[in-house]
Amino acid sequence: MTAWQNYLAENKERFLAELMDFIKIPSISSLPDHAPDVRRAAEWVKARLEAAGMEEVSIGETGGHPVVYGQWLHAPDRPTVMVYGHFDVQPVDPVELWTSPPFEPVIKDGKIYARGAADDKGNMLPSILAAEAFLKTSGELPVNLKFFFEGQEEIGSPDLPDYIVAHKDMLACDFVLSADGSQWGEDQPALVVSRRGLCGLQIDLSTAASDSHSGSYGGTFINPIQALTNIISALHDDEGRIQVDGFYDDVVDLTEDQRRRITELPFDQEDYFSQIGVKEAFGEAGYSTCERAWTRPTLEINGIWGGFQGEGVKTVIPAEAHAKITCRLVADQDPADIVQKIIKQVQRLAPPGADVKAYPLKGAAVPFNMAEEHPGNLAAGKVLTALYGKEPYVVRMGGTVPVSGILLENLGKPLINFAFGLNDEHVHAPDEFFRVSSFDRGQQAYGMIFEELATRQG
Amino acid sequence: MTAWQNYLAENKERFLAELMDFIKIPSISSLPDHAPDVRRAAEWVKARLEAAGMEEVSIGETGGHPVVYGQWLHAPDRPTVMVYGHFDVQPVDPVELWTSPPFEPVIKDGKIYARGAADDKGNMLPSILAAEAFLKTSGELPVNLKFFFEGQEEIGSPDLPDYIVAHKDMLACDFVLSADGSQWGEDQPALVVSRRGLCGLQIDLSTAASDSHSGSYGGTFINPIQALTNIISALHDDEGRIQVDGFYDDVVDLTEDQRRRITELPFDQEDYFSQIGVKEAFGEAGYSTCERAWTRPTLEINGIWGGFQGEGVKTVIPAEAHAKITCRLVADQDPADIVQKIIKQVQRLAPPGADVKAYPLKGAAVPFNMAEEHPGNLAAGKVLTALYGKEPYVVRMGGTVPVSGILLENLGKPLINFAFGLNDEHVHAPDEFFRVSSFDRGQQAYGMIFEELATRQG
Repeated sequence: MTAWQNYLAENKERFLAELMDFIKIPSISSLPDHAPDVRRAAEWVKARLEAAGMEEVSIGETGGHPVVYGQWLHAPDRPTVMVYGHFDVQPVDPVELWTSPPFEPVIKDGKIYARGAADDKGNMLPSILAAEAFLKTSGELPVNLKFFFEGQEEIGSPDLPDYIVAHKDMLACDFVLSADGSQWGEDQPALVVSRRGLCGLQIDLSTAASDSHSGSYGGTFINPIQALTNIISALHDDEGRIQVDGFYDDVVDLTEDQRRRITELPFDQEDYFSQIGVKEAFGEAGYSTCERAWTRPTLEINGIWGGFQGEGVKTVIPAEAHAKITCRLVADQDPADIVQKIIKQVQRLAPPGADVKAYPLKGAAVPFNMAEEHPGNLAAGKVLTALYGKEPYVVRMGGTVPVSGILLENLGKPLINFAFGLNDEHVHAPDEFFRVSSFDRGQQAYGMIFEELATRQG
Repeated sequence: MTAWQNYLAENKERFLAELMDFIKIPSISSLPDHAPDVRRAAEWVKARLEAAGMEEVSIGETGGHPVVYGQWLHAPDRPTVMVYGHFDVQPVDPVELWTSPPFEPVIKDGKIYARGAADDKGNMLPSILAAEAFLKTSGELPVNLKFFFEGQEEIGSPDLPDYIVAHKDMLACDFVLSADGSQWGEDQPALVVSRRGLCGLQIDLSTAASDSHSGSYGGTFINPIQALTNIISALHDDEGRIQVDGFYDDVVDLTEDQRRRITELPFDQEDYFSQIGVKEAFGEAGYSTCERAWTRPTLEINGIWGGFQGEGVKTVIPAEAHAKITCRLVADQDPADIVQKIIKQVQRLAPPGADVKAYPLKGAAVPFNMAEEHPGNLAAGKVLTALYGKEPYVVRMGGTVPVSGILLENLGKPLINFAFGLNDEHVHAPDEFFRVSSFDRGQQAYGMIFEELATRQG
């Protein structure tokens, strides 16, 4: 073992305890009441970077939730690598489905159960710990290093583009490694060559000025829930294809070779669905489950509500009904364009007498492609091969790291997946967890890639 | 003025203050947390009946919310009339849409604003006050009188049939007057010859065991909200006709003459819709708005919910989605039969991979018809003509008094509408109100009908 590896081994217990402290901060970025908690998490990260020995550590103000930056730039002629991650987390509802309170982490069978354990606190902290291991044992790092952590990933990083544009020099680098993401399996690494983008909208529909009595008014005007379900139902055909005019216009279809290589991967559909208890696949006709998840755009209803939700009966015709929709996008769909197309479709579908407001939600992200032969992928591939004893699969990811498109557009650097989550971790759902073994592996991997990148020209 | 009318005039302020006290009790029958309040309302009614001079006053236990009974039976050879009403109220949500707190009644421009002001506390109390006026001024009533008030009308009176069957002798009478209902307008009375029935069900639909991440799983299985909206959307055709196999089988169509008489009534559609701010009529093809509201069955979505309802974006695929449905029924539809037909239809519409539970909710009520020439209608008509100086219109009501079917089935007595609500009172909605003038008119009307019934053979 090298010195930095010894340091990681010796401090294993302390690092795990620190992760637990980090997780306990309920830094939910989508809920305004939790804004102070997101800031507390930023301050925790700032203090942790300082303790690791990073320099110029600061909290950056974005207008929304803050970012945290730190650097160490004393390796002339070596490359400069930037590590990206996020310290905000998803909401916890439905909280009653959690086995233990979401912000009181517990370890069972080598798994840390808590909101944010995997996404992204348990994934981002290892990069800092690896840097500390070098700085505390040798006083220096093998490469020039920048950390850039944000607090608004779970709401689509709305204020990040402006911040990045305004801090281009500070953030300039040769590679960006994303500490937000996952590997293929516990024993199998992967390189990511595409990620889906994101856009979202809300529909507020009303057909009356006030709730009314279904005895007095039932059957005489359109129920807003009926109107909303008619609209939503019409946004897909029976075979799962999205029915929004022009929705697929800019989709770049995969080549036959790319599709074949996806088919050759040992994608285990049964295991994939068993993680969340799904019994039957359903999706756009003509594509496999894996292709649907990685390469095809979606339109998902994230929430719907209207009228009475309590126990028993309330014979009301509600005045209004609401829905939230997000789309996962693929290259070259443009998030703003797609939202407008959906809004137009929703307005076209609105029945007479319905007042339909449809408007974009914050958090759009462009879909993201990168070449397999990109130097960052080559370096990551070498480290992953050494770490796992296996070459990584070349995969595409259904999820979105909004910052990936932002970095590509503004710094000209693609984001390289270098994170150690796994797909069974109930991310965004009750009982999210992260493996202690993944937490350890992330530390090893970041130490190794710092050394690997040192061998390359800056 | 007669002695009883003088008494009403002299006690006007006190009676209004008593109504305010009655309204302040938040006797919401559909919310289990409010069960003690429903009981408090029962105790209030019991005390009020005793104060009025009624005898054998008691709270009756039904297994659910209680009933209150009182009698005065010292008029041999005179008819026995029973007055029905209810002291429970609807929930108040969305509470943020109320101008003033729903259980803190305020009087503005001669209107009492509060939940239950019209439905049914302001309508039922006058009958007790009229009885008190006779008993306090002459020591006797012109007829034999029974009061029967219940605490579960707003949840469909689930325990009432068993209670009535078990107390047939106690409740035996010649006429039942309903103090729950309304008149045509401030200057125009009406006799009611039909009321719609009611049945309800809930749909709980799930397509996964847990919520999931729309990045990881979007597009690969059916979103439960999508599945639910598809089902709900398919329950009506584009012209508002209900698409449930056999739904209309037992509907007795009105005769051409009955339809013509409805057409001849001065039904003001603009005014009708302006009460709740509806801009456009929509409903079953081939029927007028008035016919849709009075004579046609409906299937209304009273509530829908699933997934994220908070601010901003949550990129979740929820595990489940839910809806509540009630139908207004017309003779001779059977509530239990209709619920089963809808459940079957919902199951037929369930997509593969969706676990759909559809089950009846409590509170079914049979639709109710009565002849225009029924002696009760003749007596009520005579009083209304004297009170308003106009003959009543013959109308049908879209709403349901569940007890009407129960009384018909078990006591053989139809329920005669004798209540003084008006259609603009936001019943079941925010800012419910009742006119002080209607409260006074109800007291006069009950006094007059007690005297009118005394002229008829017992």
